[in-house]
Amino acid sequence: MSVPQPTTATLAFAGMPPSRPESDIPRGWIIPIGGKLVDEEILERFVVLCGGPAARIAIIPTASSEPDIGTFYERDFRRHGVAQAKSLHFERRSDCDDRDWLTWLGSATGIFIAGGNQLKLTATLGGTLAARLMRQRNAAGVHVAGTSAGAAFLSEHMIAYGDEGPTPRAGMVTMCAGLGLTNRVIVDQHFRQRDRLGRLLTALAYNPFAVGLGVDEDTAAFISPEDVVETQGSGAVTIVDTSDVQYSSIADAKPGEAITLLGAKVHVLGQGATFDLTTRKADGASAFVISD
Amino acid sequence: MSVPQPTTATLAFAGMPPSRPESDIPRGWIIPIGGKLVDEEILERFVVLCGGPAARIAIIPTASSEPDIGTFYERDFRRHGVAQAKSLHFERRSDCDDRDWLTWLGSATGIFIAGGNQLKLTATLGGTLAARLMRQRNAAGVHVAGTSAGAAFLSEHMIAYGDEGPTPRAGMVTMCAGLGLTNRVIVDQHFRQRDRLGRLLTALAYNPFAVGLGVDEDTAAFISPEDVVETQGSGAVTIVDTSDVQYSSIADAKPGEAITLLGAKVHVLGQGATFDLTTRKADGASAFVISD
Repeated sequence: MSVPQPTTATLAFAGMPPSRPESDIPRGWIIPIGGKLVDEEILERFVVLCGGPAARIAIIPTASSEPDIGTFYERDFRRHGVAQAKSLHFERRSDCDDRDWLTWLGSATGIFIAGGNQLKLTATLGGTLAARLMRQRNAAGVHVAGTSAGAAFLSEHMIAYGDEGPTPRAGMVTMCAGLGLTNRVIVDQHFRQRDRLGRLLTALAYNPFAVGLGVDEDTAAFISPEDVVETQGSGAVTIVDTSDVQYSSIADAKPGEAITLLGAKVHVLGQGATFDLTTRKADGASAFVISD
Repeated sequence: MSVPQPTTATLAFAGMPPSRPESDIPRGWIIPIGGKLVDEEILERFVVLCGGPAARIAIIPTASSEPDIGTFYERDFRRHGVAQAKSLHFERRSDCDDRDWLTWLGSATGIFIAGGNQLKLTATLGGTLAARLMRQRNAAGVHVAGTSAGAAFLSEHMIAYGDEGPTPRAGMVTMCAGLGLTNRVIVDQHFRQRDRLGRLLTALAYNPFAVGLGVDEDTAAFISPEDVVETQGSGAVTIVDTSDVQYSSIADAKPGEAITLLGAKVHVLGQGATFDLTTRKADGASAFVISD
């Protein structure tokens, strides 16, 4: 497993463009997990991607209010054979300039972002050297997984919070900028357990350019460097593809009003089923199309 | 004035990454205008950038509910010596695949987006061939200006709507994905006329990674390919630089509660004053720093 090492310049940047592939190096995997992780194969697959026993996993516990969540995941990764798993407890924005932690982060082969409140992640990490380094390392081939709040945080457009329910309604979702590893998906997690189809559809109704990714609990959406999504876990990943949307009423909808959204396509991807974010094609025996 | 011409491939893409510079070609200018345009020099400067009398300006009237706004701007650009100014009335999402309009858009040297409701722009254009072409053309050197709603629409993170007032409060702003020409700024317009400092600060409190750009009426923020912002017009551009923010309380704030945001720096840039989005340095005799 060869992951490019950061140079001094890595830590010296002032401002940075979005995460983007550097020359010919493929981007790392981006792996939103829907929370309530039980399936051992999810972390196992992440560990293998990151180099197996040679992996160096940086854990970001910032979203959580549980003080020992970092230690919990350090132990969990050790159980998966990773000797080098370290929690970097970026609690305040000033922590995000910590030289030692940034050096550790910069040499990690994988980054794992724990759950909690995703606004703690954006408010603490947003725009700091730590966030920029995560973007840059992912662009350079390092894999980034996040569970629950950590999953929401991964993409450019993040669902901060919202209401439950299957029907999209104006104002039912609050969005803001996330970490920005990709702008091609908007992630929602605890997806069917918390009945979040409505808020994901609302997020997409504002601007039907991204693909909606509803990730169930104990389930991961493994997004490859080539932008193919594959489900791993006991639940499903619900894909909302808006590429054929004919109409969204969001510009005229009053607060709380149900939104008209015509032509969205929904795929439910069980274990092993895939969806290509570029060609917008779903594949896999376990996937079935609800509407076409 | 030489602007690279689109190839057949330009129109054949299925999905596209964010607007990004292609090899060595500098990106076009991005020019948010605060609405209520009176100052003749704003459009004049845009026209000169686009090639003067040889310019081809595509006008996007989609945000407006006034049926003759496109004709109004066609006439306005002719008055500025541009013989080729054409309104492309993308009214429905299906219009955004119109071959003739896309061809015209693809050969424009400048794109001007009129005001109205920015959600009409995102809901109609988001994810369509027309929006992708605008992103790609800007990355290839074509200049894009937008006034009022058109200004809000330009960046990756767009303020959809929000409340007035100087104090940032949880939930006072609704954001969504915009056109995505840059993710380095969040634009607000009619800025001091509608007392929008609070909602801009709220947008930045969610994730202090972008620079806030509050553009007054009759004023433009000319953002160069090198990401230097320069004010042109009778008002000012208010820069909110969050690079030294120590703390944002957004993760813990209840709806309507005032947000604590510590360490934001504010610059007010009058005519000719500049702010570098990369180095975060303000410059110019007419600029004064409110807090440092």
